[in-house]
Amino acid sequence: MQAYAPLIKLLKKAVEEQQHALNSSLPKEMYEPMSYIIGLGGKRVRPLLTLIGCDLFGADPQEAIFSALAVELFHNFSLMHDDVLDKAPLRRGSTTVHEKWSENIALLSGDGLLVKSYQALNKSNPVKVPELLKLFSKTAVEVCEGQQMDMNFETWDKVSIENYIEMITNKTAVLLGCSLGMGAICANASAMQQEHVYEFGKHVGIAFQILDDVLDVYADDQKFGKQVGGDIIANKKTFLLLGAYELANESETKELDHLFYSQEILHSEKIKQVTAIYNQTHVKELAINEANKHTDIALKHLGELEADISKKNNLKTFALDLLKREA
Amino acid sequence: MQAYAPLIKLLKKAVEEQQHALNSSLPKEMYEPMSYIIGLGGKRVRPLLTLIGCDLFGADPQEAIFSALAVELFHNFSLMHDDVLDKAPLRRGSTTVHEKWSENIALLSGDGLLVKSYQALNKSNPVKVPELLKLFSKTAVEVCEGQQMDMNFETWDKVSIENYIEMITNKTAVLLGCSLGMGAICANASAMQQEHVYEFGKHVGIAFQILDDVLDVYADDQKFGKQVGGDIIANKKTFLLLGAYELANESETKELDHLFYSQEILHSEKIKQVTAIYNQTHVKELAINEANKHTDIALKHLGELEADISKKNNLKTFALDLLKREA
Repeated sequence: MQAYAPLIKLLKKAVEEQQHALNSSLPKEMYEPMSYIIGLGGKRVRPLLTLIGCDLFGADPQEAIFSALAVELFHNFSLMHDDVLDKAPLRRGSTTVHEKWSENIALLSGDGLLVKSYQALNKSNPVKVPELLKLFSKTAVEVCEGQQMDMNFETWDKVSIENYIEMITNKTAVLLGCSLGMGAICANASAMQQEHVYEFGKHVGIAFQILDDVLDVYADDQKFGKQVGGDIIANKKTFLLLGAYELANESETKELDHLFYSQEILHSEKIKQVTAIYNQTHVKELAINEANKHTDIALKHLGELEADISKKNNLKTFALDLLKREA
Repeated sequence: MQAYAPLIKLLKKAVEEQQHALNSSLPKEMYEPMSYIIGLGGKRVRPLLTLIGCDLFGADPQEAIFSALAVELFHNFSLMHDDVLDKAPLRRGSTTVHEKWSENIALLSGDGLLVKSYQALNKSNPVKVPELLKLFSKTAVEVCEGQQMDMNFETWDKVSIENYIEMITNKTAVLLGCSLGMGAICANASAMQQEHVYEFGKHVGIAFQILDDVLDVYADDQKFGKQVGGDIIANKKTFLLLGAYELANESETKELDHLFYSQEILHSEKIKQVTAIYNQTHVKELAINEANKHTDIALKHLGELEADISKKNNLKTFALDLLKREA
């Protein structure tokens, strides 16, 4: 997005400097994987939000650069460990750290990355450190809790939509809120304004995750980076699956149960049949309604921000673009 | 130690409150293992050192209670993850977290514990937080680096005594220095005084670890909590093994190589023969000399402390008691 080009440039430089520092640190067995996972890139939405949050309240985004770095390092730590937990072979199309090196390396290097995120944060203005640290650590705990809930769901028979929203709020959404909130703290925004920008980010995050579940099933095969229906094959308890169970009649429930537990069915067939039930139950519409609900809450909080109107509009456009993608 | 009874009482109360908070947190799958590993106890030397470091410089030890908690939580995080890395079945005579629950639980619960340590630290006087955070994070990174070096040594053909001292300095000793140093920070000690108390703790830590290696081979079977010779069976690159290689003549080197790589020899026989070479090379004396060297450095730093002489003597007695044990 053109309006954010200067922030993106600032961020790019800081991330490159961080990588350079990691590349020259020893023992390399611990530091190389850190640099590797950061180098896989991604859109760096979270640290960008931190700079945006600072800029929004009229401060020099440079004030928030170490908070932005902390958020990016933390996010990469969580990816490195989540990939171990999920035994994921690929991350952003590349081999995961534990596959490329080992689980032990991913464990220890991830630990180091988490500590590095706190070191980055501590380069901020000392007066701001306790407040930043408070929001950052609270969020970090919630992300761990969200990951644990997600793991718990694998063995739960009955997961409600409410449970699911709580899980994605912790696992994904609060870090978006925190990213913006830390920027607001760096810009000396009031507690109330911090709260609004945090809630904006959080609800965008919830909407994003729900739409991500929709995308997994309904994306355009050609434009989607990964396999359509991947969540169905992995038996993941997504919004669509949980919603479909809530909407299904008796025979649809039976069919879902059968498809969910069947070991024999072909992947392509399973995707086709589960998608058919999703269509019958109109769960896609339920999901989109739920996502819209959270988008609306987010926009309400955006409306409460005492900031330059053009900056607010830029943030709105940025968030809505994030939510649109290829769904 | 009688002189520290009030500090031990203060610490006990804080740890119990922390455990209580963990026990009532959800999801329990993540919090139960945190409370479990903290409940395994141990001597809580590190957080006690934090309170001692604060008391030493004439401040109310209550000032350092959250730093002490942070140190204790961090130490337990590192134990939880180290046990995964080492595939250890037992910790302080009880089942390790990854054995009792799973590796995934130990990974995630450990991550949570690390974040919790930062949350504890952030309850300190806000003015002190950046300085505490700096020492704490620097130390945390070093502990990870030390653990990585230890893992690297498993596959290195040639590990020098110097490499070994660097490894134990990072893996074990700096946390003792940091524990005291954080106490000193809380007590408003000068940078120079912080440095002296940190170096005191660090060198006591190095001496402690070297003597721990000696103890593994030369402890009194009856009084030692674990199997004598455990390090020999595990082929651990201890001070004794590395020192023996440096002191050994050609035939002793060959014999050590043979014993080290042999798959067939009985455990009791291996312990007997390796110990015989240790005796021939007088490596125990080398180790004790090295430990004494670090104890002397520690005491020199203690001598530089501008603190009440009786408090300095108490700390000296406490440290020397730690080093004596049953070696």
